[in-house]
Amino acid sequence: MQFVSILMGSKSDAEVMRECAEIFKKFDVPYEMIISSAHRSPVRTKEYVLEAEARGAKVFIAAAGMAAHLAGAISSMTTKPVIGVPMGGGTLGGLDALLSTVQMPSGMPVGTVAIGKTGAVNSAYLAMQILALGNDELAGKLKEDRVMKAKNVELDSAEIEVLL
Amino acid sequence: MQFVSILMGSKSDAEVMRECAEIFKKFDVPYEMIISSAHRSPVRTKEYVLEAEARGAKVFIAAAGMAAHLAGAISSMTTKPVIGVPMGGGTLGGLDALLSTVQMPSGMPVGTVAIGKTGAVNSAYLAMQILALGNDELAGKLKEDRVMKAKNVELDSAEIEVLL
Amino acid sequence: MQFVSILMGSKSDAEVMRECAEIFKKFDVPYEMIISSAHRSPVRTKEYVLEAEARGAKVFIAAAGMAAHLAGAISSMTTKPVIGVPMGGGTLGGLDALLSTVQMPSGMPVGTVAIGKTGAVNSAYLAMQILALGNDELAGKLKEDRVMKAKNVELDSAEIEVLL
Amino acid sequence: MQFVSILMGSKSDAEVMRECAEIFKKFDVPYEMIISSAHRSPVRTKEYVLEAEARGAKVFIAAAGMAAHLAGAISSMTTKPVIGVPMGGGTLGGLDALLSTVQMPSGMPVGTVAIGKTGAVNSAYLAMQILALGNDELAGKLKEDRVMKAKNVELDSAEIEVLL
Amino acid sequence: MQFVSILMGSKSDAEVMRECAEIFKKFDVPYEMIISSAHRSPVRTKEYVLEAEARGAKVFIAAAGMAAHLAGAISSMTTKPVIGVPMGGGTLGGLDALLSTVQMPSGMPVGTVAIGKTGAVNSAYLAMQILALGNDELAGKLKEDRVMKAKNVELDSAEIEVLL
Amino acid sequence: MQFVSILMGSKSDAEVMRECAEIFKKFDVPYEMIISSAHRSPVRTKEYVLEAEARGAKVFIAAAGMAAHLAGAISSMTTKPVIGVPMGGGTLGGLDALLSTVQMPSGMPVGTVAIGKTGAVNSAYLAMQILALGNDELAGKLKEDRVMKAKNVELDSAEIEVLL
Amino acid sequence: MQFVSILMGSKSDAEVMRECAEIFKKFDVPYEMIISSAHRSPVRTKEYVLEAEARGAKVFIAAAGMAAHLAGAISSMTTKPVIGVPMGGGTLGGLDALLSTVQMPSGMPVGTVAIGKTGAVNSAYLAMQILALGNDELAGKLKEDRVMKAKNVELDSAEIEVLL
Amino acid sequence: MQFVSILMGSKSDAEVMRECAEIFKKFDVPYEMIISSAHRSPVRTKEYVLEAEARGAKVFIAAAGMAAHLAGAISSMTTKPVIGVPMGGGTLGGLDALLSTVQMPSGMPVGTVAIGKTGAVNSAYLAMQILALGNDELAGKLKEDRVMKAKNVELDSAEIEVLL
Repeated sequence: MQFVSILMGSKSDAEVMRECAEIFKKFDVPYEMIISSAHRSPVRTKEYVLEAEARGAKVFIAAAGMAAHLAGAISSMTTKPVIGVPMGGGTLGGLDALLSTVQMPSGMPVGTVAIGKTGAVNSAYLAMQILALGNDELAGKLKEDRVMKAKNVELDSAEIEVLL
Repeated sequence: MQFVSILMGSKSDAEVMRECAEIFKKFDVPYEMIISSAHRSPVRTKEYVLEAEARGAKVFIAAAGMAAHLAGAISSMTTKPVIGVPMGGGTLGGLDALLSTVQMPSGMPVGTVAIGKTGAVNSAYLAMQILALGNDELAGKLKEDRVMKAKNVELDSAEIEVLL
Repeated sequence: MQFVSILMGSKSDAEVMRECAEIFKKFDVPYEMIISSAHRSPVRTKEYVLEAEARGAKVFIAAAGMAAHLAGAISSMTTKPVIGVPMGGGTLGGLDALLSTVQMPSGMPVGTVAIGKTGAVNSAYLAMQILALGNDELAGKLKEDRVMKAKNVELDSAEIEVLL
Repeated sequence: MQFVSILMGSKSDAEVMRECAEIFKKFDVPYEMIISSAHRSPVRTKEYVLEAEARGAKVFIAAAGMAAHLAGAISSMTTKPVIGVPMGGGTLGGLDALLSTVQMPSGMPVGTVAIGKTGAVNSAYLAMQILALGNDELAGKLKEDRVMKAKNVELDSAEIEVLL
Repeated sequence: MQFVSILMGSKSDAEVMRECAEIFKKFDVPYEMIISSAHRSPVRTKEYVLEAEARGAKVFIAAAGMAAHLAGAISSMTTKPVIGVPMGGGTLGGLDALLSTVQMPSGMPVGTVAIGKTGAVNSAYLAMQILALGNDELAGKLKEDRVMKAKNVELDSAEIEVLL
Repeated sequence: MQFVSILMGSKSDAEVMRECAEIFKKFDVPYEMIISSAHRSPVRTKEYVLEAEARGAKVFIAAAGMAAHLAGAISSMTTKPVIGVPMGGGTLGGLDALLSTVQMPSGMPVGTVAIGKTGAVNSAYLAMQILALGNDELAGKLKEDRVMKAKNVELDSAEIEVLL
Repeated sequence: MQFVSILMGSKSDAEVMRECAEIFKKFDVPYEMIISSAHRSPVRTKEYVLEAEARGAKVFIAAAGMAAHLAGAISSMTTKPVIGVPMGGGTLGGLDALLSTVQMPSGMPVGTVAIGKTGAVNSAYLAMQILALGNDELAGKLKEDRVMKAKNVELDSAEIEVLL
Repeated sequence: MQFVSILMGSKSDAEVMRECAEIFKKFDVPYEMIISSAHRSPVRTKEYVLEAEARGAKVFIAAAGMAAHLAGAISSMTTKPVIGVPMGGGTLGGLDALLSTVQMPSGMPVGTVAIGKTGAVNSAYLAMQILALGNDELAGKLKEDRVMKAKNVELDSAEIEVLL
């Protein structure tokens, strides 16, 4: 069974990453979600990643803050695509997590998305775009979602619009 | 035919993005590469993206500097995965391009990689990891490449190693 | 009929941009205001911009946050002056929006103003300064406003002034 | 006679701002260009601005580096549109000049463009977009320029393009 | 009569700058305090500075936020020492105000102190250190204050101290 | 008697540094904790550091904010290891304190840890790792703590885990 | 004898600080200049500062890079005004030195000037402005210098000026 | 045999880290030095760290650039002290490497030193300060080195000193 695997480095990331899980639920995409730290539980992280890959994980999403190494650590354990979500909590607004996630060395990519909740949502979308390459039904849903989003802009606008 | 489509915003990005193309050549992955600007040639960009997608483009890579909108613009035109490479030229070291590329709004992800040449290389790797989900031969090559990279570290180390 | 067209990328920008609209009301300058996203509703954005220009829009004001592409996208669609207002919400204090708005490539300018509410107000003033080049009455009002502002400084000062 | 007035704070800005002047020459737009500092020659700056405005200056362009106050100072002296070009020389890559130029207080806008040479060019384009509101010939030239720019992208691309 | 002149750019700076005034009261140093903006009331600012200097102002303290030009503007009007206090309000934490205040061009110094309330206090201390060069009584008070500050550290420490 | 000496520059740092002390209590590591400022009480700081070293202080921990000189000052007074904790309070999120603490000149190291509470905790761990080189019991406790931390990750995960 | 005392933290600062000394020579202001480090030679620094003050030093100028503590250290040793010059060498463009110098705690001010050579020059000007409060001849020279500077702007301008 | 273990992530770090090795040679402190990447050779890194610790490594020094995870990865593998050296190469001046190294989560400290060559030198000094806690001879050498450093300041100063 194909699924997306979401890892986060700390329970403090759970509230933000619930936004990611919600998207998968809405689109009926199977996912797993666990807490495992690159630093506090490196063995668990590695065992989970290898085993999840063996069970069918096609994309990994990793959320972490500060010196956010989780996505990079996973990237070094698998050649499946890894998406990194920099957490924004902390005194530097997530700039530390962003740079720690995105500035990966040659051959070890992390596809990094926006800081915080927007990134949590976008990690799900990017994962689905990847899965949709081999899943026409999902591809169709993503296209419909775009139409919806454009319509929602119109609805939002209607509430404040001033036209001459 | 499945391929990766590389766009860059300006001819000044060509030298950096050649690093990306080299990776695809090395792994025998079909790619296209064009210059098209989100701002100076928006019509060309849109026409190319739609037409490339129709012809088989599975992943888009977009490289741009400064207010780097190219990856985001492509993300708004397609639901295929888009990888953004922030260019480092300019007085701010690519921080402007990084933030302009990665901080995309909900539902419009850009998988962003490192600034400059490292990012150019990693955009190719991330694209191949995505394609490899449906291509076992490529998946195998990526795993071999990891073994090679680990071996190269040992060779590099041998030149400077001091052991007791 | 000549007017200023205000676009914002998201309904979350509406509260800030109301400050912009208030200035136009105060100076009796016709304006339109809509929500349209560079990414979520690119077609709507383009259609509106072209149509607004045809109906008499002389200046465009675009407000957006994070990877703020709206002003730049509009700049690529028209040769009318475009003023960009970087939104400050988010974990980076609007630095992302500022750089995404101001660092435009050659030939595609966005006249960028301050982050957040001050920028919303100043976008209106800059638009009026532009319109006033062909509108002596408005030019006169802007000069009176300066006199008023200088007087208000004196009134503000009177409340806290300590003179020997 | 209508013209654009270019001021720069120091002779070290001259090389960069020549790019601005070149654009005006190319488009046959009358301009003046002087060095005058907000700090070292405040009286000269004020006298010039007032006198230039009286002689027909419709838009002011101000280039300065570091604590770049020139554009802001001019903005306080006139209600004509003022465009600020942050200079990139110095150890902070122009971030100081950018923030000093763009973060103006309510009612005193500076339309800020990109740091350095790109900004120098774009200040000219923005000034011309403003003038073109009352000058159909210039408006036409700006539209043609866009067509040209899009064509140049194609020419640039042709040199490196890889298509399947 | 010798005195220190405090200017601030906006009434929103008054609460912070009251900290500065309190120090002068405590040390019995005559001061004036007014609101005057470099941009909104440039004439008032210049007239006040010249007149205050004529009446005995020996040091100027200028507090402003964002594109904080007030201290620099005063520095261009007088050869008396000017101390700049960058205000921290705003989305960038006062980095904009700090750079706008400190990065002055050759020959036009602003002695810049810390962002916000600490800077407000320190502007008073620096001004008093300057005046104390010609005022032995004040010099004595400043030395006593140092002794007091060191004692206060001991008192603060006593509340939390853990010694073996 | 061997102990760790904790200094902080101001009583406002006490709440954060209590986290550091708690760790030492938990691991039964003797510590001292005082407030002493590099600037307000330099004599006290020097006397304490020399005397503490004479009494058995093996590691110094110094916490300070803004232009955080305390750790560096201690480093210049002793050749014992000095750990710096940058405080995060202030408008710049502790970036000032971080750079002031870590960027020490050749031969005068400060081992710097994370900004704020996390750094306070980690300063205790780093100090204990240093002491444990000569203390097998403590070394054993640190290893057990790692096991515990890994277990806690599992417990945290159990609360939110989603597995297929 | 009254004089200004210049300290720099390292011989690598000497080239930049020569610019400071040149200004004093030009204005015939007595100065001393030594290298002494806050960290590598703290005793020498303290002894020199106390002794220089006793011999007539009225203002201290301190230049340092990276975690630039020298100015702050001197500020803790004397109640004479201290001017800090952040050095720009290093990978962060002097942002570290700037923040380490300017963000001093309450009651311990450092009047900070621009990063690098411009700051070196301005430290001399600020010191002279302070001395000129008790030295009418020097005050006169500073006023003349302003006239000269304004004239030089005109001369510089003449070389590139374009007037209609 | 007790020794210090130096790891670096890439051969491009070798030139900088030679500065670290030179210090150990000068002080006759046994060290090992290898290249091993947290990402490209994670297995090698882990095996080396565990085996080096078993053979007597008392302190680990890890140098890496960009998303510098090496020090953090080692910190998760051992409870020996880990010192991180952020590399400065790259377009962001090492800010990315600094934040990736220093902002470690609770319980997993990395004692971080300055960016680049200065940090390379200081990592050696900090390691020696740690070892010297159990090595009186080394402790004595470190004290002598301080005396030497202070003397060198005097020698450096003599070349440029200006005294009245």
